[in-house]
Amino acid sequence: MNKIFKALSDKTRRQILAMLRDGELTAGEIADQFSITKPSITHHLNILHRAELVSREKEGQYIYYSLNTTVLQDALNWFLDFTGIDKEDNNENQKPGL
Amino acid sequence: MNKIFKALSDKTRRQILAMLRDGELTAGEIADQFSITKPSITHHLNILHRAELVSREKEGQYIYYSLNTTVLQDALNWFLDFTGIDKEDNNENQKPGL
Repeated sequence: MNKIFKALSDKTRRQILAMLRDGELTAGEIADQFSITKPSITHHLNILHRAELVSREKEGQYIYYSLNTTVLQDALNWFLDFTGIDKEDNNENQKPGL
Repeated sequence: MNKIFKALSDKTRRQILAMLRDGELTAGEIADQFSITKPSITHHLNILHRAELVSREKEGQYIYYSLNTTVLQDALNWFLDFTGIDKEDNNENQKPGL
């Protein structure tokens, strides 16, 4: 969970995740959307990959990145547990899965 | 938003936030719940305060910390925008407020 929030604590990385909502992209296609250097984008992609927020798959000479919605859902669930939004059927003062 | 996610990227800080759900606490009361040093807790509280996730108010010789639910809600909203959960009334492919 630490790695997920750390990965989300950067605007470029949040923008990359937003781009991947529409489908998989190569590192080059992602880099084309930013004015920062390709090594810098690679660095951000590595952080997102280590946090398991993105998956990558080699196809020929390209590496395709895609969104790992399960891990994003885990982080969203932390918020929902924390704020108690999902507690309609459970009135206990449940502690979140920290 | 960067500061919020960075502040959330630590288990102790998430535990402090969970403790404050039940009401305001002094730094001493928070520190009593952990086996780490008081200066370390103060450091975590400062990070949470800089991210505006907690508010603090001096009352006599004590400083009381409380949860700033508005800022937590901002982070939750980012997730909801991102995952599209709140888009029932809006079918456009809305981009999140990054």
